[in-house]
Amino acid sequence: MNLNNLKLHHKLVPDNYLKLALEAQRCKEIQIKELLEKRKLPDVGWTEELIEYVIQQLAALDNNNFEHKIGLGEREARMASIINRNYGFGHGIGRSGDLLDAQPKAVGSTIVAQLSNALVLDVIRLQGIKSVKSYFIAPMATGMTLTLCLLSLKKRRPPAKYVLWSRIDQKSCFKSITTAGLTPIIIDTVKREEQDGLFTDLGKFEENLSCIDREEILCIMSTTSCFGPRNCDGIISLAGLAAKFDVPHVVNNAYGLQSTYLTHQLKQANSAGRVDLFVQSTDKNFMVPVGGAIVAGFEESSVHTVAKAYAGRASSSQSLDVLITLLCLGKIGYQDLVSQRKLNFVYLQKQLEEFAEKHHCRVIRAKANPISLALELKTLSTDVATKLGSMLFTRGVSGTRVIIKGCNKTIDGFEFADWGSHESSLDCAYLTAAVSIGLKRPEIDAFIHKLQQCWQDLEKKINKDT
Amino acid sequence: MNLNNLKLHHKLVPDNYLKLALEAQRCKEIQIKELLEKRKLPDVGWTEELIEYVIQQLAALDNNNFEHKIGLGEREARMASIINRNYGFGHGIGRSGDLLDAQPKAVGSTIVAQLSNALVLDVIRLQGIKSVKSYFIAPMATGMTLTLCLLSLKKRRPPAKYVLWSRIDQKSCFKSITTAGLTPIIIDTVKREEQDGLFTDLGKFEENLSCIDREEILCIMSTTSCFGPRNCDGIISLAGLAAKFDVPHVVNNAYGLQSTYLTHQLKQANSAGRVDLFVQSTDKNFMVPVGGAIVAGFEESSVHTVAKAYAGRASSSQSLDVLITLLCLGKIGYQDLVSQRKLNFVYLQKQLEEFAEKHHCRVIRAKANPISLALELKTLSTDVATKLGSMLFTRGVSGTRVIIKGCNKTIDGFEFADWGSHESSLDCAYLTAAVSIGLKRPEIDAFIHKLQQCWQDLEKKINKDT
Amino acid sequence: MNLNNLKLHHKLVPDNYLKLALEAQRCKEIQIKELLEKRKLPDVGWTEELIEYVIQQLAALDNNNFEHKIGLGEREARMASIINRNYGFGHGIGRSGDLLDAQPKAVGSTIVAQLSNALVLDVIRLQGIKSVKSYFIAPMATGMTLTLCLLSLKKRRPPAKYVLWSRIDQKSCFKSITTAGLTPIIIDTVKREEQDGLFTDLGKFEENLSCIDREEILCIMSTTSCFGPRNCDGIISLAGLAAKFDVPHVVNNAYGLQSTYLTHQLKQANSAGRVDLFVQSTDKNFMVPVGGAIVAGFEESSVHTVAKAYAGRASSSQSLDVLITLLCLGKIGYQDLVSQRKLNFVYLQKQLEEFAEKHHCRVIRAKANPISLALELKTLSTDVATKLGSMLFTRGVSGTRVIIKGCNKTIDGFEFADWGSHESSLDCAYLTAAVSIGLKRPEIDAFIHKLQQCWQDLEKKINKDT
Amino acid sequence: MNLNNLKLHHKLVPDNYLKLALEAQRCKEIQIKELLEKRKLPDVGWTEELIEYVIQQLAALDNNNFEHKIGLGEREARMASIINRNYGFGHGIGRSGDLLDAQPKAVGSTIVAQLSNALVLDVIRLQGIKSVKSYFIAPMATGMTLTLCLLSLKKRRPPAKYVLWSRIDQKSCFKSITTAGLTPIIIDTVKREEQDGLFTDLGKFEENLSCIDREEILCIMSTTSCFGPRNCDGIISLAGLAAKFDVPHVVNNAYGLQSTYLTHQLKQANSAGRVDLFVQSTDKNFMVPVGGAIVAGFEESSVHTVAKAYAGRASSSQSLDVLITLLCLGKIGYQDLVSQRKLNFVYLQKQLEEFAEKHHCRVIRAKANPISLALELKTLSTDVATKLGSMLFTRGVSGTRVIIKGCNKTIDGFEFADWGSHESSLDCAYLTAAVSIGLKRPEIDAFIHKLQQCWQDLEKKINKDT
Repeated sequence: MNLNNLKLHHKLVPDNYLKLALEAQRCKEIQIKELLEKRKLPDVGWTEELIEYVIQQLAALDNNNFEHKIGLGEREARMASIINRNYGFGHGIGRSGDLLDAQPKAVGSTIVAQLSNALVLDVIRLQGIKSVKSYFIAPMATGMTLTLCLLSLKKRRPPAKYVLWSRIDQKSCFKSITTAGLTPIIIDTVKREEQDGLFTDLGKFEENLSCIDREEILCIMSTTSCFGPRNCDGIISLAGLAAKFDVPHVVNNAYGLQSTYLTHQLKQANSAGRVDLFVQSTDKNFMVPVGGAIVAGFEESSVHTVAKAYAGRASSSQSLDVLITLLCLGKIGYQDLVSQRKLNFVYLQKQLEEFAEKHHCRVIRAKANPISLALELKTLSTDVATKLGSMLFTRGVSGTRVIIKGCNKTIDGFEFADWGSHESSLDCAYLTAAVSIGLKRPEIDAFIHKLQQCWQDLEKKINKDT
Repeated sequence: MNLNNLKLHHKLVPDNYLKLALEAQRCKEIQIKELLEKRKLPDVGWTEELIEYVIQQLAALDNNNFEHKIGLGEREARMASIINRNYGFGHGIGRSGDLLDAQPKAVGSTIVAQLSNALVLDVIRLQGIKSVKSYFIAPMATGMTLTLCLLSLKKRRPPAKYVLWSRIDQKSCFKSITTAGLTPIIIDTVKREEQDGLFTDLGKFEENLSCIDREEILCIMSTTSCFGPRNCDGIISLAGLAAKFDVPHVVNNAYGLQSTYLTHQLKQANSAGRVDLFVQSTDKNFMVPVGGAIVAGFEESSVHTVAKAYAGRASSSQSLDVLITLLCLGKIGYQDLVSQRKLNFVYLQKQLEEFAEKHHCRVIRAKANPISLALELKTLSTDVATKLGSMLFTRGVSGTRVIIKGCNKTIDGFEFADWGSHESSLDCAYLTAAVSIGLKRPEIDAFIHKLQQCWQDLEKKINKDT
Repeated sequence: MNLNNLKLHHKLVPDNYLKLALEAQRCKEIQIKELLEKRKLPDVGWTEELIEYVIQQLAALDNNNFEHKIGLGEREARMASIINRNYGFGHGIGRSGDLLDAQPKAVGSTIVAQLSNALVLDVIRLQGIKSVKSYFIAPMATGMTLTLCLLSLKKRRPPAKYVLWSRIDQKSCFKSITTAGLTPIIIDTVKREEQDGLFTDLGKFEENLSCIDREEILCIMSTTSCFGPRNCDGIISLAGLAAKFDVPHVVNNAYGLQSTYLTHQLKQANSAGRVDLFVQSTDKNFMVPVGGAIVAGFEESSVHTVAKAYAGRASSSQSLDVLITLLCLGKIGYQDLVSQRKLNFVYLQKQLEEFAEKHHCRVIRAKANPISLALELKTLSTDVATKLGSMLFTRGVSGTRVIIKGCNKTIDGFEFADWGSHESSLDCAYLTAAVSIGLKRPEIDAFIHKLQQCWQDLEKKINKDT
Repeated sequence: MNLNNLKLHHKLVPDNYLKLALEAQRCKEIQIKELLEKRKLPDVGWTEELIEYVIQQLAALDNNNFEHKIGLGEREARMASIINRNYGFGHGIGRSGDLLDAQPKAVGSTIVAQLSNALVLDVIRLQGIKSVKSYFIAPMATGMTLTLCLLSLKKRRPPAKYVLWSRIDQKSCFKSITTAGLTPIIIDTVKREEQDGLFTDLGKFEENLSCIDREEILCIMSTTSCFGPRNCDGIISLAGLAAKFDVPHVVNNAYGLQSTYLTHQLKQANSAGRVDLFVQSTDKNFMVPVGGAIVAGFEESSVHTVAKAYAGRASSSQSLDVLITLLCLGKIGYQDLVSQRKLNFVYLQKQLEEFAEKHHCRVIRAKANPISLALELKTLSTDVATKLGSMLFTRGVSGTRVIIKGCNKTIDGFEFADWGSHESSLDCAYLTAAVSIGLKRPEIDAFIHKLQQCWQDLEKKINKDT
């Protein structure tokens, strides 16, 4: 609405009043111009009004929102619902050949997709990985996106069938391999004498790389962010091995983008060796609804191959949520969240250690895990430890996990001893708790409070029973 | 808000007034009760207010929307955005083990997912496929969902590598095979003497099934809805072959749910032989934004295997859009759309035939294609036909395609002669136009008008040039 | 957002795609330009998106929505609520001196006020009163607005104290006189031998005008739209008397704007004599929430005096609702509503007459009342008639009124015999029902159905009792 | 939606999950129950979701939102607009006889009206006026509401015609008298030797009360909140005079509810003498859009008479905005705003005094004005002072006023010397600035900064010119 060019009757509003009001709009226009021309995350988050305005204007550029559209195809982004939660975006993103292609029917959706990609790049760089070259938001959860990455590698290495996988007991990650029709070679994590926590078994990796035909190895798959006391994989060393043996290396960085410690590992790994792709969740790192992941890499071609492998146009919902959220936060807002998280981690650790001291247990110090903490439950029987977990959930604490001995599991034909522990010889039960971006300090206090209550209740019950 | 149980001060409102007003709410409560208890599509579409009310109440059941939540996990559905286009739904659907599992943190999202699945079932049955047993909404476009189906079959038939594919020149469909790491055996469609249009080369299928090791064949992949003059594949015969040779049969029913002719073919195919899975797009059949597909089948196990193959929790965005839209439409609303589409198809055919008569061309009568029509452009050179296509697009007509001779294309290493024509020996150029659900009669009129204008302009230009 | 002037990176979207999409926006820009420059009701109603867009852009012109506002006054339109149902409009309209003045702090609110006034003018003219000169939306219900009109006349005629009022038994209308501190001279309506219905007692008016000191008469107050069987006042004759005796004439045209018969009376009255002001409700004529009225007149000065009399800035809520609604409807939409209403009136009359024939009662033919019908209830006792009214209300019929004999009432010290009947000698009970703009045909059917049910129930009960 | 009573299929969601989720809803239900049963402002503000939920549920109780309504009246709250900014509320509040009556067609609107009145009472008491008895939100700006108060007094004292008015140069306040058809007796404010600022001329009041026939005096009208350096009127003494001479006393407390100093004056005045009605703006005290006022008093009857004087049903827009806003803020939120305002006042005073010291002017210490400050501009000529005012406005500072000598004005026939100064013998120009509820500290800093800039620019210009 270009009021500047309109000739308004003085009865509608006097010229001099209007002039002042129009001048006051200029800073918004500059904000929009900067965003669209420079494609950078704004320093300060935008107002709701400004975000909605831009989103609505972009939606108007999709042809299903044109006043006089004539659609004679099988897919014309017509929408039957009277509830407009999608701003009129219906065409999805990309073309069937390539997720990153512009969609001629949907100029607005295309801009949303490209712009959200560009802002995500800004965040990745902000978090320290300056050398990232290519990246895009995939409209699938992290697990399926890892599957897509593996399938795209498979297209380039048809005879390969093995994925060397540093064990992480998170189902989606493992299933991403079997769903791709590949065979995982599971390498359990190991303990070290001198340090707490679980570490990558680098020896086993080298052994496997040496004895399996290189052509048959699709890639190494490692993980950064994980449940304590498992540490971030030794991805710098793994990258070295990948380079040495010339096999691809895919990193599952699920919620690692929020931690500068983990992004630093990624950056170093790329300098020291080979990292082909690293994948992270949009919901875990950007506080949007579940459903998207970011594929990134240090070379244009490897990432683009993934985008091309996606069969069909894709949902624009995930890109839109990321775009809205990053504009809401701005650079400063995101960095604030990142630093608060760090402080919260230290705070939770302190609280848990005080608790541990009181109750004769201990917090495992896995130094290479900056997000998730583990509290060893040495004094509790398996049953009682399990009970503790369910009591916490019933009392409104979600996200903690209790890991116990002897819980074996078979997934897609592969057996895991002590499922949940990332190793096959768990010593004793423990409880994990993670400090994610967006967690509020009072939640930590409430958690410690509930933990104490449950502990006391359990103790009372045990004393009564004995 | 259970006002029935409140003791309101008479100053707030007199009792007798309130009583009458509360009675008037009962029919809404009954509508909600019926929906949630019976899980059936309501006959008449709901009002916007009622839909939003139910959606909001369901969202309140997800734990991220609880007043006192304590989230100590890495994924707690926190949302940073001030713009609430997701009603507070953030947890996605399913668990990492299974898309169809209830998510304990997200009771509302779980209900949304299961309820939208249930309503979709109703539509499938309404459209005539009464014997359908299992079904779910996958949060990926049709192409990627086909990939997931193939990968899930591969899990059960590890040595298989070939997909016998009746050629359809739509990129996503073909890519769904190569992305799955499988090898397509491309079987061109063929013409018949006595009938117009292109048909499945059943002989070639039988030949291939006979000479390739059955163990190495993953499945037959056929297509129902397609661009004219290609007909719906002979899926009844293909189902027979699948049964005879005991190989799975996957049907790409992309936009076929909207046509009772095509759903009838599916039903018959299942009676006559073997159909393991059939996949259709949510956007093309339900007028929601691009991004979801429905996997359905006649046996519980085959469909459930697909749901289990999805690695990770998935976006609930697609289920939510389907739920909202189906509640909007109701049974009557959906059936109206279906019948209008049929009438529109007849109307477009008549208009095109009148046009054809005037301009010495003809409409190809592909009787087994109830959605898309092809207008042969015998009198136009390849260049002029191409020009016609781009003129139409520039004038606001989207969705039509001009297919010309000699347009060869290589996709993922496979060569296609006369890409776009579903065969390798195209006679002459043609223009396709599809009549989809939601198309409005005036769009057809406007299309014919624009077609006439462009044709005249081209004729003038040709006469001038010569 | 002037995308035309932006230099977008080709990665964001290709230039040629963008160009087509921007061209498609032009018709919206033209719609907006025409509205703001010509200040006329558009022929066709606008889409929700376009209306919200314009409203939001206007709101951005109010200084409370400026990015960098510095407010050091006592009223700066700050808003504490997180729920934005007012689009950020907070300053109200006008200045303390004059409702029609532009507000320098609130350019957007000023445009909303002036534009809604201008569109209202268009409707008044559309409805046939082409000679209207001045008009504005007052943010008060019709009754209080009539009070304001009387007070503004009083400012010009300080010694005057009497209002000659043609009795209409609607409380607000009467109270508008007493609240203004004036003394009503109540002139009952009368029956005529030759015609059905109640008529203005023109003789009494002339008598009063002749014998009271002209200086002491503030004005004549007449009413057009009213409950049957009262007819529209003889405003043409009253206007003649007003001119003859040189006293002002105020017409209560509450819901008369929706009827071209009544607007025609107004037009004729102005030609034939004197009409100073006519007042109508925004909700009854434009289907907006209760709360506003339109003051209109045939001379600039008389109307402007009313606007100046309003003490203080006023709510812009009413203007905003009128603006949104008129843009929604457009000229064609409003005229459709008007003609449907006429047809509905004829339909209800026919239905009621059929009912009357069956049940030995009759519909009173008040020819100068085109909106409200009266059904004589000769066969019912007063108690039974009263019962009928409450039964209808309990069964969901609202708006009908049952008028019975002997219901006397005192308002502000004035006594009314047979309150509700507009006369002091009611013959027998009757039921009124009105056909307003927006009434749907099925409501009429449902009403007749309920009426029949109630009648039968009553008959049964009477027979049982006797 | 009473999920508690539904029998959900386990496929929709497992019972145990649902149970936990439903338990989590209880605290919301308790919040709603408490609000509706106790009719008190909640301590902590509600979430947007909860507020909207309650509003929507209330709107559903109005008969225009019933599924099967049959409306045969002239006013049935039908709404033509597709944009629902009113939640479906259309009936307005009250009945034509009384604004405070329940509206049988609109149970929800009635609750909104009564509930917002009840919450307002809570705020009035919270601010210290515990003895308040009666109160309601009038849907008109403060000025018109004062007019309505005067008219309602006039109904009880028909022969009265004079209003003894302590001069306050704010147009609406004065017009409220003349619009009511009454004659103001203007009593200029006066200076005192010992104290800064302007004071009520109590002597003149007593003089007038003594010599005018008591029957002819309608009331005393005083003002609390006002532009500095005018002080709050000596309402305690005026209340004493009102009691002594037995005349009503109306207090214009426009933006005084936000200051506990001023509410304390009111409370004291009532104890010490007579206060019939006090009126305050909803927008100025509650940060809602312009358009409403609160009429309050210490006796039921006087306030109720005002409510009954309003002719017709009224807009519910104002009540709805107040309800939403007060629920947003809660008791704590409102009290925070009140204390921040006090601190901001002290801060601005300090900043202005520092400025004054630097620039050889002074801040006038009107101790009985806790909201607005005046900066004497002794060194500036009238022209330059005027220029300063307009420079500030152009630079985005709104709300400040520059008062200069010799600015005489006639309003409705009454002449005011030195308009703007509340007296007839202004010494020198000054600038006022007010600290209202909701003002942000950075606005004060920005104001002082702009003031310095303008001052410097003016000095430069003066030096250059001389």
